[in-house]
Amino acid sequence: MPSVAHTSTNGVNGAAPAPKGAKPNIAIYTSAAHELYQKEIPYPEIGPDECLVHVRCTGICASDVHFWRSGCIGDMVVRKDMILGHESAGEVLAVGEHVTTIKPGDRVAIEPGVPCAACKHCVGGRYNLCPEVKFAATPPTDGTLRRYLAHPAQYLFPIPDNMTYAQAALVEPFSVALASVDKCNPRVGQPVYVAGAGPVGLATALCVRAAGASPILVSDLEESRLEQARQLGFKTLKVDPKMGRDDLAREIRAAMGERCTPEIVFECTGAQSSIQSAIYAVEDGGNILQVGCSKPEVELPLAAMAFREVNIVTTLRYHSTWEKMVRLLGDKFFGDVDHLVTHTFPLERAEDAFKLWLDRSANAIKVQIVDES
Amino acid sequence: MPSVAHTSTNGVNGAAPAPKGAKPNIAIYTSAAHELYQKEIPYPEIGPDECLVHVRCTGICASDVHFWRSGCIGDMVVRKDMILGHESAGEVLAVGEHVTTIKPGDRVAIEPGVPCAACKHCVGGRYNLCPEVKFAATPPTDGTLRRYLAHPAQYLFPIPDNMTYAQAALVEPFSVALASVDKCNPRVGQPVYVAGAGPVGLATALCVRAAGASPILVSDLEESRLEQARQLGFKTLKVDPKMGRDDLAREIRAAMGERCTPEIVFECTGAQSSIQSAIYAVEDGGNILQVGCSKPEVELPLAAMAFREVNIVTTLRYHSTWEKMVRLLGDKFFGDVDHLVTHTFPLERAEDAFKLWLDRSANAIKVQIVDES
Amino acid sequence: MPSVAHTSTNGVNGAAPAPKGAKPNIAIYTSAAHELYQKEIPYPEIGPDECLVHVRCTGICASDVHFWRSGCIGDMVVRKDMILGHESAGEVLAVGEHVTTIKPGDRVAIEPGVPCAACKHCVGGRYNLCPEVKFAATPPTDGTLRRYLAHPAQYLFPIPDNMTYAQAALVEPFSVALASVDKCNPRVGQPVYVAGAGPVGLATALCVRAAGASPILVSDLEESRLEQARQLGFKTLKVDPKMGRDDLAREIRAAMGERCTPEIVFECTGAQSSIQSAIYAVEDGGNILQVGCSKPEVELPLAAMAFREVNIVTTLRYHSTWEKMVRLLGDKFFGDVDHLVTHTFPLERAEDAFKLWLDRSANAIKVQIVDES
Amino acid sequence: MPSVAHTSTNGVNGAAPAPKGAKPNIAIYTSAAHELYQKEIPYPEIGPDECLVHVRCTGICASDVHFWRSGCIGDMVVRKDMILGHESAGEVLAVGEHVTTIKPGDRVAIEPGVPCAACKHCVGGRYNLCPEVKFAATPPTDGTLRRYLAHPAQYLFPIPDNMTYAQAALVEPFSVALASVDKCNPRVGQPVYVAGAGPVGLATALCVRAAGASPILVSDLEESRLEQARQLGFKTLKVDPKMGRDDLAREIRAAMGERCTPEIVFECTGAQSSIQSAIYAVEDGGNILQVGCSKPEVELPLAAMAFREVNIVTTLRYHSTWEKMVRLLGDKFFGDVDHLVTHTFPLERAEDAFKLWLDRSANAIKVQIVDES
Repeated sequence: MPSVAHTSTNGVNGAAPAPKGAKPNIAIYTSAAHELYQKEIPYPEIGPDECLVHVRCTGICASDVHFWRSGCIGDMVVRKDMILGHESAGEVLAVGEHVTTIKPGDRVAIEPGVPCAACKHCVGGRYNLCPEVKFAATPPTDGTLRRYLAHPAQYLFPIPDNMTYAQAALVEPFSVALASVDKCNPRVGQPVYVAGAGPVGLATALCVRAAGASPILVSDLEESRLEQARQLGFKTLKVDPKMGRDDLAREIRAAMGERCTPEIVFECTGAQSSIQSAIYAVEDGGNILQVGCSKPEVELPLAAMAFREVNIVTTLRYHSTWEKMVRLLGDKFFGDVDHLVTHTFPLERAEDAFKLWLDRSANAIKVQIVDES
Repeated sequence: MPSVAHTSTNGVNGAAPAPKGAKPNIAIYTSAAHELYQKEIPYPEIGPDECLVHVRCTGICASDVHFWRSGCIGDMVVRKDMILGHESAGEVLAVGEHVTTIKPGDRVAIEPGVPCAACKHCVGGRYNLCPEVKFAATPPTDGTLRRYLAHPAQYLFPIPDNMTYAQAALVEPFSVALASVDKCNPRVGQPVYVAGAGPVGLATALCVRAAGASPILVSDLEESRLEQARQLGFKTLKVDPKMGRDDLAREIRAAMGERCTPEIVFECTGAQSSIQSAIYAVEDGGNILQVGCSKPEVELPLAAMAFREVNIVTTLRYHSTWEKMVRLLGDKFFGDVDHLVTHTFPLERAEDAFKLWLDRSANAIKVQIVDES
Repeated sequence: MPSVAHTSTNGVNGAAPAPKGAKPNIAIYTSAAHELYQKEIPYPEIGPDECLVHVRCTGICASDVHFWRSGCIGDMVVRKDMILGHESAGEVLAVGEHVTTIKPGDRVAIEPGVPCAACKHCVGGRYNLCPEVKFAATPPTDGTLRRYLAHPAQYLFPIPDNMTYAQAALVEPFSVALASVDKCNPRVGQPVYVAGAGPVGLATALCVRAAGASPILVSDLEESRLEQARQLGFKTLKVDPKMGRDDLAREIRAAMGERCTPEIVFECTGAQSSIQSAIYAVEDGGNILQVGCSKPEVELPLAAMAFREVNIVTTLRYHSTWEKMVRLLGDKFFGDVDHLVTHTFPLERAEDAFKLWLDRSANAIKVQIVDES
Repeated sequence: MPSVAHTSTNGVNGAAPAPKGAKPNIAIYTSAAHELYQKEIPYPEIGPDECLVHVRCTGICASDVHFWRSGCIGDMVVRKDMILGHESAGEVLAVGEHVTTIKPGDRVAIEPGVPCAACKHCVGGRYNLCPEVKFAATPPTDGTLRRYLAHPAQYLFPIPDNMTYAQAALVEPFSVALASVDKCNPRVGQPVYVAGAGPVGLATALCVRAAGASPILVSDLEESRLEQARQLGFKTLKVDPKMGRDDLAREIRAAMGERCTPEIVFECTGAQSSIQSAIYAVEDGGNILQVGCSKPEVELPLAAMAFREVNIVTTLRYHSTWEKMVRLLGDKFFGDVDHLVTHTFPLERAEDAFKLWLDRSANAIKVQIVDES
C-alpha cells in the first residue's frame, strides 16, 4: 500500500490557481496495479454550472475497496489510476456564473453520478440507467476522495444546519437502500428478510422498516454486526456458513415466526449460498431484491423458482432520492444513525482508513475520512 | 329513541335452545322508521362451518348511525328492522362439526363480511367487491351488535392473550384504513395530507405513517380531534369551514412545509369542500384517495384535475387484511391505540352509547359497547 | 372571423433575414377578442440547439378552436394575440451549430411541448407535468400554425420516406391517445368502452385495440362518426342525448355483450352526462380514464363510485411517446389512418379550415392545413 | 413403450356402473419406470358439484413427455403410475345434483387445476400458487387423457358452437401464454423478443402481439418452427447453438432493428444459453420472463444483470384466464390457430402420438389425441 506521488493528472478537471489559504488538494488514488496512494492534484477550475466544494467527509464503500484490491467490478475495470470515493459531503467555496440554487458557504451532500439528461432513460425518469453517466469512482471517472472538487450544482443538495457532514455522507448509502426499497416496496405488515448486516444491509433494513414491513429479520455471519442490528431493534439470525441452503431456508422461516414467511428478501451479501437460501426461504410468489454485489456468475435454482413464481429483481444505485434523503436524515426519520459510523480518519491518513476497513477484527460498519475546515 | 321489544325475528339465524347459564340474547336494532331499540332474539343455531360467538365488544361506526338516522347510505336502504354493528370481537362458545381452525374458548376478532368465494371478484382476490357479500349491518343483513352470534369460522381470527376485546374490535376500522393505504401506497418520505381526524382519519394517518409517509399533515374542524392527532405525533391544521377552496389549498400546502407538497391525500371527511380543496392542494400528478363517505352527488373541478393529472381513487372496505391486522395490533405496531376508545357502554345501555356518539360536545373518537362474560 | 394583418410580433422568436426563395412567413392567430386572422411574421432566427422547419402540415385540434372561440380552457386564458396550432410536421431547412441529430432536408414530426428538463417532474420521467413547459398554442406560447418555425432539435423526430406529412401530423393526436392508454393499460381480452368517436376517440379506440382490449364499444351522438368507427372495425352505440344516465349505462352494458361489462372506460367527450353514465356502466372496481376535456365543474356520483371502487383517472398530453409513435404510424401499425383526415386546406385558406371544423354538417373528423414546398 | 394393462386403480375417482352405450374408459398412463401404456379404468362416479365429461380432445404438453421420459420435473416425481394429459376439452354427459351452471350436452374446455379456494393465495387472487391444488398430470394427481372424466363444474367452461374441441384444447397452452404476458405486460409499441417457437413460444408470441408489442422477434434452432412463426407474421432469427452468448445477444439486437432493443424477453426454451443471451440482449432495466422450463440449476450472470437492472420474472400456470380465453379463441381473436395443431391421433393410438412428438423430423408443433363421439 505505497503512497508515492504520481505526476499524471489522470482525468482530473481543469486546473485553476489556488486561492490564498487553500491547502494542498490531496486525492486518494488506486492504480491498475492495486496500489493505493495519495497525490496532490491541481486546484480545480469550475465551469459555469459547477460549484467548487471542499469535501469534508467521505465514506468508504465496498466498491472502493473492490476497485483497489480486485481492480474491477464486473465489466468495469480500473485501467489507469483513478481517484476513489463517492459518499461525500462538503462545503461550497465558489459557484459558477450560471448557478442560482447554491451559494458559497452552503453545506451540501454530493450526488456522485452525473447523467446525460437527454437519453431515453434520463428522459424516462430512470437516470440511474444512463449509459453516459459519469459516476464518481467508477472507471474511468475519478471519485470524490480529495480535498477540493468541482461538481455540477444540480447534483449538490444543501443540508440543514443541524446535519453533520458525517450524516450527509450517509445520504449515499441510504439512497442505495431507499432505491432498492422503492423497487420492491414492502407493504405495511409484510414480513421481510434482510440478508446481511453491513452498512448497506442495515440501511436497507431501516428503509424496509420505514416502509412498514413487519416482522423484519436481519442475518449475518458476524456477531458484531448482528449486535448492531439488534440495537436498531431488528430480530436477528446468525448464519452458519456450513449449513446447506435448505436447512438455512428452514432456519430463516423459523426465525421469522409463525404465519410470517418472508414475502420479500433484500439480499445484501451477494453470496451465492445466501441468494440460494433466500430463494427457498421466500414465500411462493415472492421477490428476491438483489442489493448486494455478487460474483459475475451465480448458480440459481431456476426451475424451483419458476414453479413457485419467485422473481429476482435487481437494483442499480438510485434516481431522484437525494433531496428526499437529505430531508429524512435531517429529520432523524430513521432515528439515530450516527453509530453506524464506527471509525473516522483524517484525509491525510486515508490509507489507514482503508487498511482498517479490511481488518475484520475491527468490527467496522462505516468508515469515514474527514477533512477539517 | 324508544327501546320497545319487538317480536319478529327479522332475518336472525336459526334458533337453538339456549344452554344453561346463557343470558338473554339482546340485539340492537334500527327500524326503517329510524327507531333504535333493543330486543331479545333467539339463541342462535350454528351450521357445520360456523361458530357460536359471545360478542364481547362492538364499536359504533358512522355507518351504523347513518342507517339509524338517515335509513340509507347511497342505494343501501333500511327497509325492515335490522340489527346494527359490524366492529366486533368476542369469545367462541361452540363450533360446528366441520370447524377445525377455531375451538371453544378462543378469543376472536370477527370479520363482518362473508363473500360468496366463487364470483370473479372473489376468485380474483378482491372479495370486497363481491356482489353477493353478506356484510353485517348493511341492509338487509343483520349486524353483530347482539350478545350471541353464529358466524362462519373462516371469518373469525383468534387474537393473542395480550390483546383486549376492545383492541380486537378496532381491527375493523384499522382494516378500512389499511385497505385504503394499500390502494394508494405512500412511499418512504412521501408527503401526505390526511383530511379528517375522526376514528377513520386517525387510523388512516397511523397506517399512512406506518407506510413511511413523511411529513404527514392531519386536518379537522374540531380542536379536540386535532389534539388527539397531535398526541399521536402528527402535524395538524385546523380548518376554517368558511374558507374558500383555493385559500384552504394554500393553507394546506403552507402547513405541509417547503418542498413537501402532498403527493397523496387521504380524504376522510367526505365533505365536498374538503374534497375540492384536496384536489387543489395535491401535487400535480397526485392522487386523492376518497376514504370518507360523501353525499351522493359531488361537484368536482374535473377540468383542473385533468390539466394537472390528479386522480380520484376510491376504496370499499377491505380484503385479506384481517389476519395481518390482528397480528399488527397485537404487536402494538401502531403504538398505543387504546386512547382512541374514548367511551364504553354496556350492551344493555347501547342506546346511550349512540346518543353520546351524536353529542359533539362529548369529544368522542371511538365509542364501544361491551358485554361482560 | 376577420383576417386583418396586425403588426405586433407577439412572442414570435427572434428574426433573421429571409433567404432568397423564402415565401412570406404567414401565421394564423387568434386574439383575446376571438378574432381569427393571418399575419406575416418575421423569418425566424434559430438558436444553436434549434432547427428551422418549414411547417408542411398542421391538424386542427379542438383546443385550437376553444382558444379561438372561448378564449380559454380552464385557467389558460388567451390574454394577447397567439398563433394557433400544435399538430405539425415539416421539412428542416437549417440547423443550429450544436445540432447533430437532425440535418437540413430531414422530414420531421414536431413535438409541440418543450419542458424544462430540470424540475422534479422532468427528472422523474413525467415531463408532461413540467410547470415550466412551453407548449405550442397554450397561452402565452405561440403555436406552430405558420410557415417557418424555429424549434429545438430534441423535439423534432425524423420520419421515414414512406410517411406523409399528413400522417406525421397525426403523431400528436395519436400520442395523446397512447398516453391515455398507457395510464390505464387494458389487458388482452379486457372489455373496454370508448365514449366519443371524434379524432381523439377514434385514435384512442385504435390504441385500446392495439393494447389487446376486446370487445371494444365506441359510442357517439352522430351517425357519421359511428360510421367511421364501424369502418375501423369497432362495435358502435348511438347515444340518445335525452336518455337518463342509468338507462344509458344499461344500454352500454347490453351493447358490450354478455360477460363483457367494460372494465375501463376511455371517456373522450367530456360531457357530464357521458361521464356519469360511464361510471354506472363500468364494472365494479373499474377505471374511468378521462381523456375528453370537460367543463370546469362536473357533478359526479361519488358515493356510488366509492361503494363500487370506481376511480377517475386523468391524463395530460404525453411524454416519451413521439419516437415510438413515428415508428408505429410509419409501420402502418394501426392500419390505414389516412381516412381520418377528411378535409385539407392550404395555409392561405386556414380560416376556411376553421370554419369548416365548426360546421357539423361537414362530418369532419380531422381537418388539416398544408403548405406546399 | 409397452402398453400392458395394469390392474391398480391408481388414484382414479370413485367408480359407477357404466351406462348402456358407454365405451371402455381407456386412460393413458406413465409409470415410475417410464413405461407409457393404456389401460381400462372404471367408469367414474361424480360428486354433487362435479360433471361427467367425455374427453374429446387432449393436447400433448412437453410436461407430459417429461413425466413419462424423465419421471420428474424439479421436485415433482412420478412415484406411482399416473394418467397423463391436462390440455383437454370434451362433452358433458351428466351433472351432479348441485350443478347449475353446466348441463348435459354442453361442450366444455376443462381447466385442469382445482385449487383449495381457502388458502391465502386462493383468497388473494393467485390460485395458481395454491399449495393444495390438484393439477391434472402433476404427480400424484391423475391427468385427463382418458375417455370419461369426473371434474368439478366450476372448472368447466362451455364453448361456443363454432369452436372445435381441438381449439378448446388449445385454451390451456394459450392460458399459459396469456398468464405470462399478464405478468410482464408489454406496452403498445414496445419491442419484445420471444426465444423459442414451439407451441408455448408461438402462443406467447401471439399474446405478446395482442398486447401491442412491436416489433416482435421470434427465434428457434429449427427452421420448420421458424417457418410457422413467419406464417404467423413474426420476424424470425435462426439461432446457431454454437454461437457464444455475447455474439447471440448482438445478433438478437441486430435482428430486432434499429432503436428497437427488446425491453422484455419471453424466454420459452428454458435452455441456459438462451437465458444468458436474453439477459445480454435485453435493454437496460428490462425483464426476462422465464416461461420455458429450465434444468434445476442454471448459471446466470447476476452481477451484469444487477449493473443493468435486468430482472428475472417467473410464471406458473395461470389464474382466472379460462373464461376469457374461451371467448377470445371463439372470437378468432388471435386469427387462425388451427394450423398450430400439426398432428392428430385417436385415443386408442395415443402411444403413437407420443412417439411422433419425440421425432424431431416430424416437425410437429402441437400433437392432439382425439376421441369420436
